[in-house]
Parts: sequence; structure tokens; C-alpha cells
Amino acid sequence: MKHFLSVKEAGDIMSLVGLAKACKAKPYENKKLGENKTMGLIFMNPSLRTRLSTQKAALNLGMNVMIMSFTGEGWALETEEGVIMNGDKAEHIIEAAAVVGEYCDIIGLRSFPSLKDQKADYAEPVLNAFVKYSGKPLVNMESATRHPLQSLADVLTIEEFKTTEKPKVVLTWANHPRALPQSVPNSFAEWINQTDYEFVIAQPEGFELSKEFSGKAKILYNQDEAFEGADFIYAKNWSSYKHYGERYFGKESWMVSAEKMKLTNNAKFMHCLPVRRNVIVEDAVIDSTNSIVIQEAGNRVWAAQAVIQSILQTN
Amino acid sequence: MKHFLSVKEAGDIMSLVGLAKACKAKPYENKKLGENKTMGLIFMNPSLRTRLSTQKAALNLGMNVMIMSFTGEGWALETEEGVIMNGDKAEHIIEAAAVVGEYCDIIGLRSFPSLKDQKADYAEPVLNAFVKYSGKPLVNMESATRHPLQSLADVLTIEEFKTTEKPKVVLTWANHPRALPQSVPNSFAEWINQTDYEFVIAQPEGFELSKEFSGKAKILYNQDEAFEGADFIYAKNWSSYKHYGERYFGKESWMVSAEKMKLTNNAKFMHCLPVRRNVIVEDAVIDSTNSIVIQEAGNRVWAAQAVIQSILQTN
Amino acid sequence: MKHFLSVKEAGDIMSLVGLAKACKAKPYENKKLGENKTMGLIFMNPSLRTRLSTQKAALNLGMNVMIMSFTGEGWALETEEGVIMNGDKAEHIIEAAAVVGEYCDIIGLRSFPSLKDQKADYAEPVLNAFVKYSGKPLVNMESATRHPLQSLADVLTIEEFKTTEKPKVVLTWANHPRALPQSVPNSFAEWINQTDYEFVIAQPEGFELSKEFSGKAKILYNQDEAFEGADFIYAKNWSSYKHYGERYFGKESWMVSAEKMKLTNNAKFMHCLPVRRNVIVEDAVIDSTNSIVIQEAGNRVWAAQAVIQSILQTN
Repeated sequence: MKHFLSVKEAGDIMSLVGLAKACKAKPYENKKLGENKTMGLIFMNPSLRTRLSTQKAALNLGMNVMIMSFTGEGWALETEEGVIMNGDKAEHIIEAAAVVGEYCDIIGLRSFPSLKDQKADYAEPVLNAFVKYSGKPLVNMESATRHPLQSLADVLTIEEFKTTEKPKVVLTWANHPRALPQSVPNSFAEWINQTDYEFVIAQPEGFELSKEFSGKAKILYNQDEAFEGADFIYAKNWSSYKHYGERYFGKESWMVSAEKMKLTNNAKFMHCLPVRRNVIVEDAVIDSTNSIVIQEAGNRVWAAQAVIQSILQTN
Repeated sequence: MKHFLSVKEAGDIMSLVGLAKACKAKPYENKKLGENKTMGLIFMNPSLRTRLSTQKAALNLGMNVMIMSFTGEGWALETEEGVIMNGDKAEHIIEAAAVVGEYCDIIGLRSFPSLKDQKADYAEPVLNAFVKYSGKPLVNMESATRHPLQSLADVLTIEEFKTTEKPKVVLTWANHPRALPQSVPNSFAEWINQTDYEFVIAQPEGFELSKEFSGKAKILYNQDEAFEGADFIYAKNWSSYKHYGERYFGKESWMVSAEKMKLTNNAKFMHCLPVRRNVIVEDAVIDSTNSIVIQEAGNRVWAAQAVIQSILQTN
Repeated sequence: MKHFLSVKEAGDIMSLVGLAKACKAKPYENKKLGENKTMGLIFMNPSLRTRLSTQKAALNLGMNVMIMSFTGEGWALETEEGVIMNGDKAEHIIEAAAVVGEYCDIIGLRSFPSLKDQKADYAEPVLNAFVKYSGKPLVNMESATRHPLQSLADVLTIEEFKTTEKPKVVLTWANHPRALPQSVPNSFAEWINQTDYEFVIAQPEGFELSKEFSGKAKILYNQDEAFEGADFIYAKNWSSYKHYGERYFGKESWMVSAEKMKLTNNAKFMHCLPVRRNVIVEDAVIDSTNSIVIQEAGNRVWAAQAVIQSILQTN
């Protein structure tokens, strides 16, 4: 694997899931692989799970880890080319990426979208600039449009918990007080579309994901209908792609409740976290034994480790 | 040792002091013990000594260390249960603690009190949630009501510097421009009450600590009287427990001065740091050879190392 | 080497450059040297290159690295002595430095000038307090008046790229929207004055550096004249030393352009970064093959490693 930006670089995703399982079974088996190699984790936005799980994965592989948060410890980066930089941005991403590339063997990068300009966000200027100018393998730690480390952990988790060959997996939109990126649902859809699971997306009208991501998923505007017979309920809020960045008010009825979970085939409940309790999901659901959100978060380590190991073995 | 939340988990404190001395004598003796183990240090508040000394202690034991500051790098956590999370708190501590538990073998946690609601603070909601939901051994790096790593370092320091079998130890309140937690004096009292030192607390009226902590200490409202014959002066400001969180104005006279130190038995001066010079203590005192505040701060490493080693050997 | 504060401690700088080259050739050759040693990196200001390159250098030498940013994770430090600390500064640098010294074997420190009080800044109160009170070797990671790790990397870079025995090196002032410290040009001048390069400083009137730093350099107020026959153009903005901290408005003509580079002897372009594109330097220059800013930034690792190795071998 050269880079890990999306499902496209993952190759056969079930092979990658298999490698993640092997990492989980023997975490320190390849500790020599990363010796004298440096993983740089660059954050343009806050992070808990991604940061700790990726750091741990790299440490398990024997790497040194250097973490840099541009918000707290650095400065604002310019991403437009040809600009006269006499404003508040102290450095161009061309130099920043190249310099980080000088110090690191693999770079993990988190950079959220603006949610103001669809075209600009979907062009992934920050991620692509790092690919272009750093000269080093990039690991997407959630970009403007994707969160593939999350999706790999999600598929691993479904594989561990599924009780039928082709489970019915439902990605359901849920209410949220703020406008959120589409990166998690985009990525989840992109990955699930690479499996042979039955895949349904439930959402209010106007919240269709880009067709590039939703692909062959069955779109339903009725959450109850979607839940019927589901084996996995994957809840997530996202802002509108069509009316870019807008959030939907007054959709409290889309909360995943214990009542609604009764419609399912004793489904497992998943969410990438952080989650708003009693907004996205009722306490009774996330506190039930059917909730596997913590195991899902735990699997983030093995997803990251499989990816980093693949990159170390290739580059 | 399962957790290290207060003196209660410390067992025989002089044994733990002995272990700290052994760590100080041979810091790298147990470097194999922490191999492939991860110490997570979680900060809800700023830190200098606690952060560096605990990080160093874990590194001395061969552990990996992952540090996360929720203020600078994360987001606000909800601690109340059953809440509809549609405000500014992005994640519930139930998930945050469980997730950190997935990634770490031992968790160090710092979480200060609000100083607004005595009952809420003294219930230690953040620390207890981490104990309950993380599933991992917790090390208290200063909670709402206690700072036991500091207290262990304090007892170690007194043991190193005492010149008499049963020294007279005086915890004295001192002036400060801000309202401060009771955690350091609470904890100090709790620990000193486990020794056979003579123990006196000097403070203005209205600044009595909770009886749960002050215990058998002799309370004096006259600082001069308290200082007479003292072997150790331990200065600290704290806000009122009774009039919860209030600070006392106009108490400049409680500053520890060279003049007052003359009343003592050539006492050593201690403070947990950071300290306000010429407010808590006069330059002439903290700059004298009787001041052992730096050695005390240095001992934080060995206190933390003894605690982490005990936890590694138990769990 | 006891400390590394300026060129004064560097000894014969070409020997140090030689050591940096040896580190670059075999980065892990001395990994045993730093075993069980701790490098503390203390930041009073933001950092990208200095932080990552110094961290990497210490890791290459087998050290543990502890990083502390006082702005994001700590509190404001008092530097004046004898003050009554009842304001917003929670700790005196006397204690802070001594405590960091308890936990670290070598301390790297970054502390920028106020640019308000020339005398105070040039007395280097923060750096000198750390030297005085920490009791440990100090590495200057950019102080109020100097940035010697940068300068060592700069000389290493010139040595690598020079095509003539005694290259003509031009330090040129350039335009910038903000008032910047004099530390980089001061330090660069101080180091280049230790070589036998031909050394010219080009600047607007009123922007003379302190004579202590500019030394034997030829000062020119005409940029075109300075560029003639130059082998290296080292661009940097700085605020006035004379009219302390003032910046010069309307000096857009001092930008390093492709047109001006034609006056040189096919000169290499250097800058310490971060750099304002199309303010300090035209895109056409920094994007050309004559630009060696990334290689220069990469050399920061080997400069830091040579310094840390020298300190480890001495102390």
C-alpha cells in the first residue's frame, strides 16, 4: 500500500480485515518492522479516538511517533496556490507538507471540511497537498470527505459480530444540534459497497450522499421500513450534501430508540463516536448489550495497525 | 494496587515510600515490567509537574505513554447521566472513559473541581466515571478533592529530610489572589494522618477542611502558635470548604515570612508548586537553604513510579 | 559542549558541521548514547520545524522526549525577581526552570522576544533563567535574540550546496505584514561571521542589526547591488533594532523576485520558514530548482542531533 486515502488504496478489503485481525491477535509480532521509522500525526482538528488509536498502532509496530496539532501548537496554513500571503496565514501548505515529509516516514493527517464550499471541500485540498508535496505515504485520519480508518474498523467489527453470512446493514441518519461533515457516512458507504452485505441508507429527503459514495445502496426515507430485519444499525448525523452544509431542524423523530430497535433482527448498534446521547441514540440502546460502540472504537487500533503495517511493508 | 485514587488504596504508606526510595536509587531496574504496556495521561486541566513526572515515571518503567489534553486537543465531556445532549458537550464521559480504556493499560487522570457545587465536586464525578467505565486501573493525577501523588512525594520528602523520629509537621493556609481547590491540603492531611508525625493545621476561621480529611490534626487559628517548634512548614492556599469555593480577602498576614520561620525549629519549607512568591511565601524563605520545594517536586517522579510499578505488578 | 545558546558554545563551527554530516550519514549510530536520558522540549511559543526536528534528533540518539507547551498546556511564568505575584502569572521561572531540570537531562527551550523593550529582550531573561536555575544543559530552540540551531543547519546547507570555496552569501531583508524578531538574522550573521564566506547584508535604512551580530558583514542599502554575483540569497524579514520592534510599511520592492535572482551567480535561495509566498519571495523563485528551503529544513534534524550528541558526550 502506497497511501491510505480511501477504499481505493485498500485493495481487497477482506484481506485488510484479515490483517487487522492478525494484528489484534498478536499486537507486537511486527515490532521490528517500524524500528527507526517515524510516524507523524498532523492534526488540523481535534481528535480522541483517531489520535490515540493511531499512535498506539504505530507504537505497537515499533515506530517513533511525533504528534503536531496545528490549531494548538502551530499556525494557520494557506492552501490556495499563487496567493499573496499578507493575511493571517503564516505558512503555505506546500512548505509545511514538504517539511513534515523531511521528518517523517509515514504521515497521518486529519483535516475537516469547511462545509461552506462543496466543490472546494470535495477537492480535498489539504489531503492532496500533503500527498503531492510531502513525498511520503499518507494515512487519512479523516479528511474533508472520508474517514477510511473508521470504515475499516467498522467492517472488522461487523465481521466479528455478524451471525449470518450476508447481514443487513443499515446506515441511518440521526438528529444532531450541529452541522457535521459527510466524511464518516461517505466512507462507510464506500466501504460497505465493497462487501456483499445487504446495504440500506435511511435518511430524510434532501440528505442524499453524493452518488459517488452511496453507490448501490438502497435509499429509504422511512426509518422504520429500513430497520425491519436489520442486523446492524449504524447511526450517524450528517449535514446536507445537496444544500451543502445545512443541517435539518426538528428531526428528533430520527433518534435511534429502543422502540425502533424492536423492528430489527436483534440488531447490533454502531456509531463512530463521539455520540450525543438521547439525540442520536437513546440511553436504553447505547447502554444495552446490543451496543458495540466500544468494541468498534477498540478496533480502531487494529485497523490503523493493519494500514501502517501494509505501508511499512511496501515502501 | 488496583487503583490509586487516595490514601485508601496505598496500603501501608511507609512501604510505598520505601518502594519510591528504591525507584529513586535504581530508576531503570524494572524497565521490562512496562514493556508493551501503555500509560494514558488524560488532562482536563493544565499541568507541569504532574505531567512531566508521571510521563517520566512510566518511561522509566519501559511503558509507552500517550498524552491527551481535553481542553486543547479534544472537547467538553458530559458527566450527568440521562441528559439530552443537545448543548455544547460533544461526548459523554461514559464513552470517553471506555474508549480510553480500550487503548491504555493504566490511565492517569487530572480533573479539577468546579468550586461551585460542594456536593457535586466531592462526589468526584469525573474520576469515578473513569473508574467505572474505563475498566482499567486509574491513577489520580489530581481530582476534585485529592492529589495523592503529591502527598506520597510529600511524605517521601519529609522522610528524607526529617532529623527527628516524630517531626512536627504544620500545614499552613496562606494568602492567594484566586480561589483554589482543597485537593492538595485534603490529600496532605489524609496522608499525614496515616503517619505518627505531630500534625497541626493553621488556618483562618472558616477555612476548616472537611473533617473527613483533617481527621486527628490539631487545628489552630493562630499561625505563630502553630509555627512554634515546627520541623516542616507546608504552605498552601485553599478556598473555603464551608462557604464553598470562597476565598478570603485581606489575609496578607498569613504569608510565610522569614520572620515567622524564626519561630520554628529551623523548619524545612515545603509547597507543592506552582507558588506565588511574596504572596504565599517570602523570597527570603523560598530562596533559603531550608526550602526543599525543588527536591519535593523532584520526588514526584519516584512517587509516580512506585504507584505505577505497584499497579503493573498487581494487574 | 555544556550549553548551546549561541555560536559561542559551538567551538569550531566546521567541526560541528562535520558532526552534523556524520549524523546525517548514519542517523542511528549513537542510539545507545541517549539511553535512559530525557530530552525536555519547552515551548513558550508555537513551533513546527524546531519541534519536530529536535524531537527526531533526540529520538535518533535513543533519548526519551517530553514536550511541554506553556501556552496551551501550562500557565504564564513570571520572570522578574522580587515581584509580589498577585497578578495573572501563576509560577515564577525560578521554580519552573528548576523543576524541569529535575525531570530532564537536557532542556530545549523556545522563548520569543516581546519586541517592546529592547534592553529586556536582549538580556534574554527566560533563556538565562533556565540556564541559571535548571542546572541542566540548555539548547536554544530560538530565544529572544538568537536561533542557533537554525544557523547551524544553514551553514551545513551552504556547505552542501556551495560550488566555490568562498561563496558570496547575501542575507537580505524582505517585506512582511507583521513585526518579526531579529533572532534568525542575528544568529545567521553571527554564524556566517565565523566562516570565511563573503558576507553581505542587504536592508532598508533603519534596519541595521545590532553591531554585536552583524560584525564584519558588508551592509548595503541597495538590494540589486547586493545580489550581484551572489551564490546564496538568504531572505528574512526582521523588525527594526534601532526603532525597536517597528516594522517598515510599503517595502514591497524588497521581495525576492525571479527578476532579481537574475542578478546573482545562479544563486541558491534559502529561508528558515515559515515563509510568506509572494511577500518575502515570489512563487517563481521558491518553486524553482534553485530553492533549497526544504533541504535546509531537513538539515535541522542533523544540526540538532550534532548539538545533542555533543552535549551528551560532554555532560
